[in-house]
Amino acid sequence: MGLTIAQKIIKSHLVSGNMTVSSDIGLHIDQTLTQDATGTMAYLEFEAMGIDRVKTEKSVAYIDHNTLQTGFENADDHRFIQTTAQKHGIWFSRPGNGICHQVHLERFGVPGKTLIGSDSHTPTGGGIGMLAIGAGGLDVAVAMGGGAYHINMPKMLRVNLTGKLPAWVSAKDIILKVLQVLTVKGGVGKIVEYAGEGVSTLTVPERATITNMGAELGATTSIFPSDEVTREFLAAQGRDADWKPLASDPDAVYDEEITIDLSSLEPMAACPHSPDNVRTVRELAGMKIDQVCIGSCTNSSYLDMMRVASILKGKTVANNVSLAIAPGSKQVYNMLAKNGALGDIIGAGARVLECACGPCIGMGQSPNSAGISLRTFNRNFEGRSGTKDGQIYLVSPETAAASALAGVMTDPRTLGAENAIALPKTFLINDNMVIAPASPEEAKNVEVLRGPNIKPFPSTTALAPSIEAKALLKVGDNITTDHIMPAGAKILPYRSNIPRLSDFCFTVCDPDFPERARKYKKGIIVGGHNYGQGSSREHAALVPLYLGIKAVLVKSFARIHCANLVNAGIVPLVFQNQNDYDQIDQMDELSLPNIRAELESGLPVTVKNETKGFAFHADSPLTDRQRKMILAGGLLNYTKAKHHSV
Amino acid sequence: MGLTIAQKIIKSHLVSGNMTVSSDIGLHIDQTLTQDATGTMAYLEFEAMGIDRVKTEKSVAYIDHNTLQTGFENADDHRFIQTTAQKHGIWFSRPGNGICHQVHLERFGVPGKTLIGSDSHTPTGGGIGMLAIGAGGLDVAVAMGGGAYHINMPKMLRVNLTGKLPAWVSAKDIILKVLQVLTVKGGVGKIVEYAGEGVSTLTVPERATITNMGAELGATTSIFPSDEVTREFLAAQGRDADWKPLASDPDAVYDEEITIDLSSLEPMAACPHSPDNVRTVRELAGMKIDQVCIGSCTNSSYLDMMRVASILKGKTVANNVSLAIAPGSKQVYNMLAKNGALGDIIGAGARVLECACGPCIGMGQSPNSAGISLRTFNRNFEGRSGTKDGQIYLVSPETAAASALAGVMTDPRTLGAENAIALPKTFLINDNMVIAPASPEEAKNVEVLRGPNIKPFPSTTALAPSIEAKALLKVGDNITTDHIMPAGAKILPYRSNIPRLSDFCFTVCDPDFPERARKYKKGIIVGGHNYGQGSSREHAALVPLYLGIKAVLVKSFARIHCANLVNAGIVPLVFQNQNDYDQIDQMDELSLPNIRAELESGLPVTVKNETKGFAFHADSPLTDRQRKMILAGGLLNYTKAKHHSV
Repeated sequence: MGLTIAQKIIKSHLVSGNMTVSSDIGLHIDQTLTQDATGTMAYLEFEAMGIDRVKTEKSVAYIDHNTLQTGFENADDHRFIQTTAQKHGIWFSRPGNGICHQVHLERFGVPGKTLIGSDSHTPTGGGIGMLAIGAGGLDVAVAMGGGAYHINMPKMLRVNLTGKLPAWVSAKDIILKVLQVLTVKGGVGKIVEYAGEGVSTLTVPERATITNMGAELGATTSIFPSDEVTREFLAAQGRDADWKPLASDPDAVYDEEITIDLSSLEPMAACPHSPDNVRTVRELAGMKIDQVCIGSCTNSSYLDMMRVASILKGKTVANNVSLAIAPGSKQVYNMLAKNGALGDIIGAGARVLECACGPCIGMGQSPNSAGISLRTFNRNFEGRSGTKDGQIYLVSPETAAASALAGVMTDPRTLGAENAIALPKTFLINDNMVIAPASPEEAKNVEVLRGPNIKPFPSTTALAPSIEAKALLKVGDNITTDHIMPAGAKILPYRSNIPRLSDFCFTVCDPDFPERARKYKKGIIVGGHNYGQGSSREHAALVPLYLGIKAVLVKSFARIHCANLVNAGIVPLVFQNQNDYDQIDQMDELSLPNIRAELESGLPVTVKNETKGFAFHADSPLTDRQRKMILAGGLLNYTKAKHHSV
Repeated sequence: MGLTIAQKIIKSHLVSGNMTVSSDIGLHIDQTLTQDATGTMAYLEFEAMGIDRVKTEKSVAYIDHNTLQTGFENADDHRFIQTTAQKHGIWFSRPGNGICHQVHLERFGVPGKTLIGSDSHTPTGGGIGMLAIGAGGLDVAVAMGGGAYHINMPKMLRVNLTGKLPAWVSAKDIILKVLQVLTVKGGVGKIVEYAGEGVSTLTVPERATITNMGAELGATTSIFPSDEVTREFLAAQGRDADWKPLASDPDAVYDEEITIDLSSLEPMAACPHSPDNVRTVRELAGMKIDQVCIGSCTNSSYLDMMRVASILKGKTVANNVSLAIAPGSKQVYNMLAKNGALGDIIGAGARVLECACGPCIGMGQSPNSAGISLRTFNRNFEGRSGTKDGQIYLVSPETAAASALAGVMTDPRTLGAENAIALPKTFLINDNMVIAPASPEEAKNVEVLRGPNIKPFPSTTALAPSIEAKALLKVGDNITTDHIMPAGAKILPYRSNIPRLSDFCFTVCDPDFPERARKYKKGIIVGGHNYGQGSSREHAALVPLYLGIKAVLVKSFARIHCANLVNAGIVPLVFQNQNDYDQIDQMDELSLPNIRAELESGLPVTVKNETKGFAFHADSPLTDRQRKMILAGGLLNYTKAKHHSV
């Protein structure tokens, strides 16, 4: 039986498990990337593992999230990451060099390789034929240390592209259409592969827009073949040697398949507040807007920016609109500056921001109250823009630019003939903002610089025989990681400072929780269904760990957060009988008298409510590997033990 | 007897008083400008005056301070200012168009005219021969309403420039030298006029760098002649018609005179934490640095940026340095994008920020802990960078760029031959980011948009016959306006929201003060010498007003803050016998039983300490006009009364 592209890469990188759907597999990881909001923690975790030098082919540390720097914290973190990278064999992309995914695609991505990154949009690399997956910082740290990355073997979903895009319709409209068809849950447990005659009509940056936003499908990752188009892109980046062809076997078997006819697509927009709430721009045309933002890892390529510049040239942004544009990388920015396109963009009145994630992660450019903002980004969750009642529409760069000029939502097809813009034969190549790591010899003398914002990673110990603690917090269904550990421009600068972050833990639900946790020093969280949904941030496990949370007892878990709890050494428990949830009140005294022995033998876990005087059973949803991890006190201890025993 | 340049402009604009040094004069104001951190309040005040349309020749509202937008507040404020401007006859410079002083110089400044602006660096306009003075927002509001601007007639200080600048030495080095000679108090009560053969060797942007930073001398303003150089600059801006020659009379009399020999100057740096703590770069050379920032109203002209680009071209910013560059205006930015210089800047690895004030006012790019940052800005006060222990050195763009490449403080004279860079014959002129006000007819239909961050200006009433209130706070000597009303990236977004700002009032001195003031609803502040020194922010008076402060009783006042108290209707009082200060404890019950009658008759004010059972006298340091203002309940009530009686 033939293999899909992803199956081929998995097969060639498999270090444990077998490729049966849903079973645990361990993958050898060739490359890693981090950004700075998750990176400081990942490197603290790597340090804690006690390994001198990364064992990957290439690991790159990017600075792109915390670039506003409204206090000393960010610059301190950047210096920490820079010096850690120097010392441990990691390449360092300096602030101003651009967004991790855009730069990685341009300069480092290699077809057929595996990449994990501590950012959920790491699948951007699928545009060049990499198996590129977003992961927690600790997973990245382990991979840098040479450890395998574990996932459950995904199903394969094939998206067959037929035809060719009409004028003014672009890659963003393709992925918005896919989101409309599959919804934000449609990719869960799956890898999305693009195939069909339409593939060859799309450039690498266009493919990357599609795989990037595949994250919004909930997919493990998305991937395109590596073909002649890929070769040309790599050649234009001076990296012919990195190319190799990659295609699925003719008899490859997919679990699902959908077909998108490119010829029939039109400009689309994801309406508030979900990326799959997609309508045609035509339907929304004429709606008055307040802001337009162009950029982000989804739509900030040279091609995107040139199309925007050609629309803006000689025109003026409407009086009622603030247009902010952030090119995706220094390469893109520099080329626009050299070829005059940037002059057209500035001339039209755009506010040109530093090459970075910027407003996409709520770092500045928050719209006015109830403001309607069109953005070429990937997420339009409520409040993510920094304005609680901001109304965010996700659109293509073409729709964004056309609308910015008109002051209302505008279908770019109304602009007349489209200027054909092609990728250059040669990109402007200047890697002077990427610092190579020190040689192993030099590395001994590199001093890692830690500012006062860098606090040590919270340590854990092996699981004790028993747990006695209060139910410090009782919450309901659908608690997100944003409830557990809020983000935003005002909290994100503290991502390397778990003690400071802990001041905000669960405060959305209960402002007194941090204080209570500090008082009692240990505790158990009790929750309902779908606990820990949303972003993959590991801080939603690390901060409760810091606050003394020993176990989380709920009706059901969201997958990634459950894995993060295990990584942190916090025991995840699921009620066997959901009615037991109702019989626990916040601050009841709970005990798990045989937790270690029960987990060791795979038995249900006994929970006693000492306050109410009754006992019940809970299950712990762990794979064998995770069970060992919990017993060892989390992934870090587990990995250290394994590493030192080798 | 002949007149100085400033005396000629004053004479032609005098509406009250006489030109005897120190006596109160009222000036007719031709132009006003505001920026957004002070502008929202100024326009709220203007609204409160009930005047439909500004009576100035030109009033311009700029957006350049709150451009990071980490919440809804800034965009709301920008819309408020935009729509207010539309409605009331004010020109609106959109966010992204640049820094108020740079844009005003380029597009609006006119030799011989008067300009007041709600920003302390308004004297930048002196570079083109304007009488340009920084003022409180309420003063600007009154001037927009056609009222006179009052100051005490300043002394005249002549700075005689001889010779010509050597290679690599620039305008910033001149003003740093002047600061070294005169100190930050050397300009108090004076207007600084530049004269001598050296004047004609300096372009307008260079002159503007010098008058801009004259603010740091404490001067009322600084001014250059309007000559052939001025004419050429205006012609290159397409504004030949705005030019007129302006020079002092040969027999003009100056109160003071100093001479600076340009030929003998070398690159200078103001060391932490005062602009007059000046040393030569040569002495500091080799000091390792962490950051370089280029831009601000002091040094962000086309000429400055071209010099920087020519130094950076083909090089790379040192690994240990983060270099941030913000061009001063869209005109400058666009020209750099068109002529390739921006490509050189980006290529070298600079982080190019939006055209705005940015890091100069602590809006982002805070250095690392204890970081050494070289900045082409105008102030290096402790903590102003956003990093409490940041070490800020103020330098020229040439020194900044040379040092960024070397990674250590570097004298640019070590770079070899300097590329001659001249001003262009024609600037790129495109005012599409400046919105003209609506016509009086259209203005009726303009709706002023107010977001939830825009709170009304606190109202005042005429002074009551008596005041009975507690001494809610007792402080010592040298209290600054930063103690009274802190600023920074985290508080500045609330400058149009006095209730929110009040949460931070005096919290540096006493975290409980806002709560106490709210509890007692009225109060008196007791302080020592030099109360209210530092920045001119009127919020340091408006916020205490909002919190119920009726009088401030101190040993001595700083001049501008005292005027702001009067504008706000808070009675300023000075102990006749300083020992009485020692006999008041915080929370003593004070009464001023005859305050109104005593002020009306010019008698000393009786103060009773009811708690301790004794009485004493205080003086109120008011001019006649200020006395009327206090009796009316502040400048706004005073102006309204005058306006409605006309």
